[in-house]
Amino acid sequence: MSGSKRVGSQSVELKNRPKIIAATSVVGPKEADGPLGEYFDIKLKDDKNGKDTFEKAESSILHTSIMECIKKGNLKEEEIDYLLCGDLQNQIASSNFAARDIKTPFIGLYGACSTFSLSLSLGAMFVDGGFANYVVSGASSHFSSAERQFRFPLEYGSQRAVTCQWTVTGAGSVLIGSEGNFPEVTYITTGKVKDYGIKDVNNMGAAMAPSAVDTLYMHFKDTGRNPSYYDCIATGDLGRFGRQTTEMMLKSLGYDISKNYVDCGESIYDNARQDTFSGGSGCGCSASVFTGYFYKQLMSGKINKILIVSTGALMSPTSSFQGESIPGIAHAVSIEFNNRGGN
Amino acid sequence: MSGSKRVGSQSVELKNRPKIIAATSVVGPKEADGPLGEYFDIKLKDDKNGKDTFEKAESSILHTSIMECIKKGNLKEEEIDYLLCGDLQNQIASSNFAARDIKTPFIGLYGACSTFSLSLSLGAMFVDGGFANYVVSGASSHFSSAERQFRFPLEYGSQRAVTCQWTVTGAGSVLIGSEGNFPEVTYITTGKVKDYGIKDVNNMGAAMAPSAVDTLYMHFKDTGRNPSYYDCIATGDLGRFGRQTTEMMLKSLGYDISKNYVDCGESIYDNARQDTFSGGSGCGCSASVFTGYFYKQLMSGKINKILIVSTGALMSPTSSFQGESIPGIAHAVSIEFNNRGGN
Repeated sequence: MSGSKRVGSQSVELKNRPKIIAATSVVGPKEADGPLGEYFDIKLKDDKNGKDTFEKAESSILHTSIMECIKKGNLKEEEIDYLLCGDLQNQIASSNFAARDIKTPFIGLYGACSTFSLSLSLGAMFVDGGFANYVVSGASSHFSSAERQFRFPLEYGSQRAVTCQWTVTGAGSVLIGSEGNFPEVTYITTGKVKDYGIKDVNNMGAAMAPSAVDTLYMHFKDTGRNPSYYDCIATGDLGRFGRQTTEMMLKSLGYDISKNYVDCGESIYDNARQDTFSGGSGCGCSASVFTGYFYKQLMSGKINKILIVSTGALMSPTSSFQGESIPGIAHAVSIEFNNRGGN
Repeated sequence: MSGSKRVGSQSVELKNRPKIIAATSVVGPKEADGPLGEYFDIKLKDDKNGKDTFEKAESSILHTSIMECIKKGNLKEEEIDYLLCGDLQNQIASSNFAARDIKTPFIGLYGACSTFSLSLSLGAMFVDGGFANYVVSGASSHFSSAERQFRFPLEYGSQRAVTCQWTVTGAGSVLIGSEGNFPEVTYITTGKVKDYGIKDVNNMGAAMAPSAVDTLYMHFKDTGRNPSYYDCIATGDLGRFGRQTTEMMLKSLGYDISKNYVDCGESIYDNARQDTFSGGSGCGCSASVFTGYFYKQLMSGKINKILIVSTGALMSPTSSFQGESIPGIAHAVSIEFNNRGGN
């Protein structure tokens, strides 16, 4: 057996502490123009990235984020044991077509906007369990492919509700391995599906908040850690209203996260100036914010401990048409960088 | 580190040999009427299973297969550490809504019709690596939800090509654990995405065959095993033409699998009598045939060693509209039951 063990009812401790060796973010022009713009690694001037469709553009930026990660690690794609990724497109087409051009065994995931922390979780477990020497975990989304997938063709010029979020055009990938002085994945809390009966697809934050709360609560309970253990707790894309709800619900359960809590979706845009309403969303949101911003904060020593909790709304256009409510899910990954500079 | 280790360039050996403790298949009336009908555990009289949509029906049969597995293992859903599943619906809605009603951390997968062996692979690795005591891995598909997802509304009454396959209405789930005398998962070969430029969505067998060939070839090469090592090699849903292509391509690469090779999709229907043309397909095809038929063959001692290779076509309706070819993927899982009756 590996040294890893289950902790509490819903978490695992990764005893071999897999390392995040490299991270790459690729974002569109709107994300580059936001408050975190300076941190992103690759910024597109054209959100079609020279392709003839938005879907192909999304796939190309995911591909770029993966290949850049492999390059940063001084590795060849043949040395990567598994590529894990997912996205919002039907049949995760962005990931499938990105993987087609990479010579690596491929595992397709779908967790809606929770996909990045799901991918990171599984990648870290593969390395921890001795199944892989190197893994790349990634996720992507694109505003324009998501709009026509889940909402309306852009040409309609639909009005947006104040609780609406703006799907991030972006991709983020990490290279995970077992050696070197890098931020380490220490605990994983995998989420259950939670459904509080929300049916409003223009208020995804409300649909996802209960799952974020449940996963955070279970993480604290399983590990015995308090919110203050972390320098930062970052949910994926709850937006302004979902972030508030999460804070309040957790407070009623005895955990005050208000001092060190941010939501990637709320942070990626200047919501008033950029007309993004409640904030960013999409698999690419927490993927690009983690790989672009937080990874650099970890590497530079500005933070040492982060809990990243990507959040997903698990409806499909068909399930919404058929009157179903919106189930949510959230996966938490604890990343720590305590042993800097040797031993 | 766990005892597990990488073997060759694309495979892992599971040293702790996770056990498949229970398996449950649920199928529709057409599958029950086919040559394997007597082996399936639960047979629907109504392919809507009392639900008002095909999508909800599919989700309900997946849910049934999962819950029956847990029951057969004399476990409660709270004792299952991870539920892993996927399906063909947009945003894997069948799996998400099945998981909503189960109190278990959930991991959503998408590998098109390769999903069952993907789910089985990851579940076995979780148990092998010490991340889980019990896992349930499953997959589902439904003829009528797939037709309107990928092809045409049933009401059109479209004519079918001779190379067409018939999506299986079915679900299959397995309960994986670490103790007891049960069939064991010994090797996993995770596939790469292969695309030979096939664009005909009515000939999925041709699109998937190269990926089946690549994964089988890598499995034999990595493990040093010959096809004759196995009592049975079963691909997922290549159908009649895809099966022939796979056999011929592998022969040209030096491996003759003709003596012990079957395709689940070719076997599940009496294709001439049941008008299923080239055979069955869908995530539920290899899932129901493995859990319904092969698992019983293993348990009864009729076979001792099987290599199950579910095969997936990774296009989406959108990618096909946009002129993309159909990438394929296949994942191989070696299951062996050598130590019967204790020691």
